[in-house]
Amino acid sequence: YTELTLVFLKGVDITNMFEHLSGNLMDFLDEPFPDVSTYEDFHTIDWLREKSRDTDRHRKITSKSKESIWELIKSLLDAWSGWVVMLLIGLLSGTLAGVIDLAVDWMTDLKEGVCLSAFWYSHEQCCWTSNETTFDDRDKCPQWQKWAELMTGHAEGAGAYVLNYFLYILWALLFSFLAVSLVRVFAPYACGSGIPEIKTILSGFIIRGYLGKWTLLIKTVTLVLAVSSGLSLGKEGPLVHVACCCGNLFCSLFSKYSKNEGKRREVLSAAAAAGVSVAFGAPIGGVLFSLEEVSYYFPLKTLWRSFFAALVAAFTLRSINPFGNSRLVLFYVEYHTPWYMAELVPFILLGVFGGLWGTLFIRANIAWCRRRKTTQLGKYPVLEVIAVTGITAVLAYPNPYTRRSTSELISELFNDCGALESSQLCDYINNPNMSRPVDDIPDRPAGPGVYNALWQLALALIFKIVITIFTFGMKIPSGLFIPSMAVGAIAGRIVGIAVEQMAYHHHDWIIFKNWCRPGADCVTPGLYAMVGAAACLGGVTRMTVSLVVIMFELTGGLEYIVPLMAAAVTSKWVADAFGKEGIYESHIQLNGYPYLDVRDEFTHRTLATDVMRPRRNDPPLAVLTQDTTTVEDVETLIKDTDYNGFPVVVSRESERLIGFVQRRDLTLAIKNARQKQDGVVSSSVVYFTEDAPQLPASNPQPLKLRRILNLSPFTVTDHTPMETVVDIFRKLGLRQCLVTRSGRLLGIITKKDVLRHMAQMMNQDPESIMFN
Amino acid sequence: YTELTLVFLKGVDITNMFEHLSGNLMDFLDEPFPDVSTYEDFHTIDWLREKSRDTDRHRKITSKSKESIWELIKSLLDAWSGWVVMLLIGLLSGTLAGVIDLAVDWMTDLKEGVCLSAFWYSHEQCCWTSNETTFDDRDKCPQWQKWAELMTGHAEGAGAYVLNYFLYILWALLFSFLAVSLVRVFAPYACGSGIPEIKTILSGFIIRGYLGKWTLLIKTVTLVLAVSSGLSLGKEGPLVHVACCCGNLFCSLFSKYSKNEGKRREVLSAAAAAGVSVAFGAPIGGVLFSLEEVSYYFPLKTLWRSFFAALVAAFTLRSINPFGNSRLVLFYVEYHTPWYMAELVPFILLGVFGGLWGTLFIRANIAWCRRRKTTQLGKYPVLEVIAVTGITAVLAYPNPYTRRSTSELISELFNDCGALESSQLCDYINNPNMSRPVDDIPDRPAGPGVYNALWQLALALIFKIVITIFTFGMKIPSGLFIPSMAVGAIAGRIVGIAVEQMAYHHHDWIIFKNWCRPGADCVTPGLYAMVGAAACLGGVTRMTVSLVVIMFELTGGLEYIVPLMAAAVTSKWVADAFGKEGIYESHIQLNGYPYLDVRDEFTHRTLATDVMRPRRNDPPLAVLTQDTTTVEDVETLIKDTDYNGFPVVVSRESERLIGFVQRRDLTLAIKNARQKQDGVVSSSVVYFTEDAPQLPASNPQPLKLRRILNLSPFTVTDHTPMETVVDIFRKLGLRQCLVTRSGRLLGIITKKDVLRHMAQMMNQDPESIMFN
Repeated sequence: YTELTLVFLKGVDITNMFEHLSGNLMDFLDEPFPDVSTYEDFHTIDWLREKSRDTDRHRKITSKSKESIWELIKSLLDAWSGWVVMLLIGLLSGTLAGVIDLAVDWMTDLKEGVCLSAFWYSHEQCCWTSNETTFDDRDKCPQWQKWAELMTGHAEGAGAYVLNYFLYILWALLFSFLAVSLVRVFAPYACGSGIPEIKTILSGFIIRGYLGKWTLLIKTVTLVLAVSSGLSLGKEGPLVHVACCCGNLFCSLFSKYSKNEGKRREVLSAAAAAGVSVAFGAPIGGVLFSLEEVSYYFPLKTLWRSFFAALVAAFTLRSINPFGNSRLVLFYVEYHTPWYMAELVPFILLGVFGGLWGTLFIRANIAWCRRRKTTQLGKYPVLEVIAVTGITAVLAYPNPYTRRSTSELISELFNDCGALESSQLCDYINNPNMSRPVDDIPDRPAGPGVYNALWQLALALIFKIVITIFTFGMKIPSGLFIPSMAVGAIAGRIVGIAVEQMAYHHHDWIIFKNWCRPGADCVTPGLYAMVGAAACLGGVTRMTVSLVVIMFELTGGLEYIVPLMAAAVTSKWVADAFGKEGIYESHIQLNGYPYLDVRDEFTHRTLATDVMRPRRNDPPLAVLTQDTTTVEDVETLIKDTDYNGFPVVVSRESERLIGFVQRRDLTLAIKNARQKQDGVVSSSVVYFTEDAPQLPASNPQPLKLRRILNLSPFTVTDHTPMETVVDIFRKLGLRQCLVTRSGRLLGIITKKDVLRHMAQMMNQDPESIMFN
Repeated sequence: YTELTLVFLKGVDITNMFEHLSGNLMDFLDEPFPDVSTYEDFHTIDWLREKSRDTDRHRKITSKSKESIWELIKSLLDAWSGWVVMLLIGLLSGTLAGVIDLAVDWMTDLKEGVCLSAFWYSHEQCCWTSNETTFDDRDKCPQWQKWAELMTGHAEGAGAYVLNYFLYILWALLFSFLAVSLVRVFAPYACGSGIPEIKTILSGFIIRGYLGKWTLLIKTVTLVLAVSSGLSLGKEGPLVHVACCCGNLFCSLFSKYSKNEGKRREVLSAAAAAGVSVAFGAPIGGVLFSLEEVSYYFPLKTLWRSFFAALVAAFTLRSINPFGNSRLVLFYVEYHTPWYMAELVPFILLGVFGGLWGTLFIRANIAWCRRRKTTQLGKYPVLEVIAVTGITAVLAYPNPYTRRSTSELISELFNDCGALESSQLCDYINNPNMSRPVDDIPDRPAGPGVYNALWQLALALIFKIVITIFTFGMKIPSGLFIPSMAVGAIAGRIVGIAVEQMAYHHHDWIIFKNWCRPGADCVTPGLYAMVGAAACLGGVTRMTVSLVVIMFELTGGLEYIVPLMAAAVTSKWVADAFGKEGIYESHIQLNGYPYLDVRDEFTHRTLATDVMRPRRNDPPLAVLTQDTTTVEDVETLIKDTDYNGFPVVVSRESERLIGFVQRRDLTLAIKNARQKQDGVVSSSVVYFTEDAPQLPASNPQPLKLRRILNLSPFTVTDHTPMETVVDIFRKLGLRQCLVTRSGRLLGIITKKDVLRHMAQMMNQDPESIMFN
């Protein structure tokens, strides 16, 4: 045993030597050469390499910290920088979300009128001080004037209506024109929801500028414009993008994150959580959303940093208090009645509806987006936005449920009818003999207002379903959480009112008998709206746990988890039956991003040998030999090919693999040697062996490059099942993998090859995958 | 492009051929040989192999399902079996939790007295129908009699007290004696909390019988006995073990899970979530606990199955309604006042206390457990339990806060003092002039009862701290959630009352001025108790997110997330400063389980060559050659070594690796060949090549074993940093990995070698790691 330990310790000594060597190598390679960056645009990162670079960095700091107090402080600062970044992300994204909320509120109301006391007040803020008790009366406070009233002095009448209608359309067109122009001119990446791209980036892909400062600025401004224009879109997805831009911005403050693409992605995962946290006021839901839906690599350390960022963001938003009610959540609801087992039937039906809507939406939207990509349509993005805004505004204005902003609509649909509610939806016929406690109102027959509202809601439902399909994917920031939830909430409320009226009029039916006595408050239509919203959102995005948690944070009661879960799971099952992919995965596929989904199971029986390049009849693999290649050969190879790296073999005959060398390192090393090292000329031989032979002085000076040779390239044998190869690529985040048989190099498999092969196996067009 | 596709399709044909081959192989290897099982006890599983076996199975079912309706139904049943298992786990673990709760309630009260109307009623159930308004009066209902009253007729007086005291101790000793005897005789694995072992099992280790039926039965019974005996332990950890036993039980119903150790672990992860869900009534917290604390491999599919199981379990428990209040949660609380920024100071102080307690507890408990393992003490587990129970009972009875069950104590400490509360802790001096709304009581000066309670609580705190250290780890089921929470809750309540009284008496102090006007209800001591409980639990277990979510589900309000988070994070930081490991990891290390923690970062600069075996001076690696080994050689090798498998090389001279063969497959194949295949004798040559040469008839028949050869063994080069090797072992769940240099086999690294090396690098005793 002692002998073993001794041998072992010797081993450590040897590696210490190695440590110094490779420490210097790292320094040398990190020298900034302006024309050669670590990763190029639209390329895949190598997670293993990034991780080991971070470990090196950490090791260096730890060993230095013992040298002086100053280094110790620096190392402490480094250890805390992760938390500082989280704090900053939370503060900035919370602030931005608050500002966006306030601006949207004001500009949405601007379409209808203006506040005379202060033009920068929204309708609600304007009438804040008004003392009316009901919402309806307070709505008509004298400080707030509609455009027609302000211009012509007449608040009522056909003329005023037409003028208001016209100005509503005009404002909407103006806002959307501004939005699309800003996106087109300043930041093309600011369009869409951004979640598909963020998923791709988090999986280890480089899209330069996607999370840049310009994108942040323009996306924030255009998001306000797009939402205010009344289009059928939400701010939730774009807010995730905005939060990720903040994350990226703060990464650049710390070299720990800015210089390491792996560490940067940890921060971005947390930023995504902060984004959802402020979008809904649901910090736990945000973390789970980031975990379930967005992130690729989510270590436990990131879990609680995300939680911290999400909390800070939520509290920053709460201090800004844009909704004016000190509530954290977007749609605060409180229900006073429990649900009954029998209600699970309508809840599950809503789940089925959600699943069907999800399928319909994904198929139709993808078909439309594909048409946009492939036909003339895609060439006129501004016109398209203007046209859709025009149609939306023209159709939306006459219906009170589509005229207002979508989040207000959802809020009203979720709400239980209290005694003082004056909305049309709460126009029930009250029994005059009944004493009315404020909270617990028994089921009542519906009045004419409710029936009227039902018709308008049905029309709004059809309108929303159709227009959302055409809206999502235009060249403006657009999220689909809110429109999806609106569709579900409308459907749910309609079902809810139907069940409520059935229960009221048919107490004696066997299904109602057990739980709904006359005069009891059995059915809460608002709950149905919420369940419907969850089902539709689940159908489109295929979230489950995070969705239920977000909804649970909105209501704040464990009581309704079962209805929500039942609807979410049903909706997922129904939608999955028609196609496994959610809207984000579909858009990733449509755009051909190289995204290796963790959820797709690869079950085909192909082997590494079927996938590797070179295929039969291809030219042989571009390799370097360990001691016969000249500098000129290498330079030619670099010029003629665009591979990321080259395998190094003993000789072309034996093809025994000894290592892998990165294109970037090779370019740098030769450049360096040509500039600084005397005697290195084109005919110099490049040696990857441990010792270069002693050559006669007449021969050109050899170039020793073992230090840039990666001696531990990742290899699999040609018989390895692709299933295992896919697993290795996914879990280790590889960029490429060499294929050998008994040490003889046969070929190479890159991430792109894997993605192509998977697409081929699923009968998709493999050529659609973007170059990595 | 077309040509490429053609070549590609040919490749598919070839692999189809291969598919049939290996399909048959699988059939053959799955034949039950009673003496050779897939994995032996205390061995590590190979995750990649299990996964690929499951894919094969799935593929077979899918292809068969097209053959007939019956096969289609079978394939659908197979697809749904996961959900069925979850449903069954939820139902059974919910039921067991309910039964345990009821039994514990009854038996805890049995120590003090008995219900005359029905002896199987607990104190609360017995006095259920009593019409008294206050809790105190209802406590003294005539149907419930203390032992002394029943035996002597005197309820009061010194004699009655002594008799009650004596009987209390007697019952406690009886219960704990029964518990420890049952564990000793029937199921030694039923002791402890079970979480360290479950973590190890989930990481891919086999401990036969740990999740068996006997363990389930005995753990359930002895858990009731142990908790009822009044020892300082909780039922939460053991409930996770019970739920996992249920999971394992239901796995055996479906060959999909019972025959695949990887799939089985997915079910067990979900079962752990169900266990926490019923322990606290916190389904989301349970899922997060399983994710953060227990599980090793947690795919998204498991996430929502866990959620389903956790929900079913929680609702089963609710229908049993053991607490008699229709509430799901263990400690339901409702607070009526918000918290103020200034209160963060005491909350953070509680966090520091929690961290210190965590450190103290872990160090002291581990030291005590090590002493138990290494000295004579460990030989008398029954005596130890009896002694600790005796001491606990003698010291606990005189103090009303330790006499009652720990969960009742926590419940009382968490509670806000209402107007009708009659407990000592709520003995405040009321201002007679004040009108008293039921919910919103202003801060009042403390009465003598409160000061009395404070003393008793302080004594209880010291008692709990000391006794818990000695209790956890004894040979009975014991969880430490409840004792840890009790320590924190007592400390928190004391701090809370102190702050409350300070705020009442010193309104004018600058720190109170801003938020605490006279006559306002500023401080909620119950909230402090809850924050303290979270801090102490966090310090011991190092949970963060799941802890906060569990606490959040208990209160059901987002409002208190910030105090809880602040305390949990502070406590984790403080505790981490003294040592990174939580109590579960410490026990894993103490017991030497081969657990590869995902959280430990390996940052040393060693290489694969330093870790692989054979070391220098060791005998060479046991290998097989592809075409020169005889059957006898193989049999000798199998007899002489106990390795799990053997690498196969081209020849001993070239040492070029061609594959790896499992010991089990080799044993089976040779046994089979000897029995069934004519002409296979000891001198037959074993061929691993594709074609065996045509031998003259005089030579013995060759044995072709290519079909059992794994042609894609996992290899790394000798220069691979151990950091990467550790990552590969963790993420891919490997059992062993071969080390090569340019295709030449140099050695092998097993999971045990990796763990030993890691222990060595952290200056721990590497020999303590259990054999895998």
